[in-house]
Amino acid sequence: MSTSAHTRVPQEERTRAMRQRLMEATFELLVEKGYGGTSTTLVSERAGVSRGAQLHHFPTKIDLVVATMTHVTERRGQELLAAVANLPQGAKRTQAVVRMLGEHFAGPEFTAALELWVAARTDPALLEAVAPLEQRVGRETHRMTLDLLGADESQPGVRELVQATLDLVRGLGLANTIGDDARRRRRILDQWAVTLEAALQETQGGDA
Amino acid sequence: MSTSAHTRVPQEERTRAMRQRLMEATFELLVEKGYGGTSTTLVSERAGVSRGAQLHHFPTKIDLVVATMTHVTERRGQELLAAVANLPQGAKRTQAVVRMLGEHFAGPEFTAALELWVAARTDPALLEAVAPLEQRVGRETHRMTLDLLGADESQPGVRELVQATLDLVRGLGLANTIGDDARRRRRILDQWAVTLEAALQETQGGDA
Repeated sequence: MSTSAHTRVPQEERTRAMRQRLMEATFELLVEKGYGGTSTTLVSERAGVSRGAQLHHFPTKIDLVVATMTHVTERRGQELLAAVANLPQGAKRTQAVVRMLGEHFAGPEFTAALELWVAARTDPALLEAVAPLEQRVGRETHRMTLDLLGADESQPGVRELVQATLDLVRGLGLANTIGDDARRRRRILDQWAVTLEAALQETQGGDA
Repeated sequence: MSTSAHTRVPQEERTRAMRQRLMEATFELLVEKGYGGTSTTLVSERAGVSRGAQLHHFPTKIDLVVATMTHVTERRGQELLAAVANLPQGAKRTQAVVRMLGEHFAGPEFTAALELWVAARTDPALLEAVAPLEQRVGRETHRMTLDLLGADESQPGVRELVQATLDLVRGLGLANTIGDDARRRRRILDQWAVTLEAALQETQGGDA
């Protein structure tokens, strides 16, 4: 009953940890069993959280999956930002950026997002809930890719080349979910990096 | 009870028509309700076929969806071959081929296939059943794309550029299922066609 700072902080900490466990369990289940196989009962069992507490924090399955994807997307975004610091400058940079994006779209976060996209296609309530997140992530990824490539979107064709790069890695990510072939992916990405680099230099040299 | 040619042929015709109705109903339901929402009961209701007759021809849901995808893939392949005859030669050909592939992967056949791929990821029996079809279609589409582009796969990089083109249209197809943006797709495909054309000429000029 105490609301002193002394007891409130541990309670907040426990709540935060419980929400975290629920989101981690949801993420794992989306990857292992798909959206249809991710029941809120399985989530509470795996997280070791009572049904009542779970429903208090996440009243519906949609609340749970949207919070989960927001959480894992932010975490993955921070990992990407950390990896960016290690990207080379100069001739090898485009290849390194394209490879990084390819790996990003071959990870479990993409798999979980794919489950939600496909389920949302035939579930209007889910679509309404995940579309804003998906659009925001799409914009942020596009912006990050432009920055990493040092590409100037005001030049004709540059915006489309960057979008094509992201649609390519999305297509590779989809192929990856039902038959991992990392060597094939690497060969395609490396060839695309060569082609993209030449095309970007072409568009940027167009003004000179 | 008669087995004379006179009565046997209409019976075969009725059987063929019934199988066709079951596969069309399955295809529509995969697109409308997804794999999870496609129950065999809904299929028999929509096709107007008794449960007994349906189970005789397609004992399981997996039999039904594999036959359906084989059927719609062959039909779509024939439509593509017909469209190929109208493709321009010369400078506009690469653009026309890339646009045709982009539209192909934005159609309901792709949507139905996507439902199966994603469901198969977490359903080993479904994966075992659809993987051979998926691999065959993948090889055929790759071969057709090489032919249409007049690309020489023995040149370094050509195989990867053609694969990248197919992974790109797959990625665009995935984006299309949850938010159609035909103008965005067209812009990306047209830029891709310019880049692909230049890259293919580069690889093929490499020997000269």
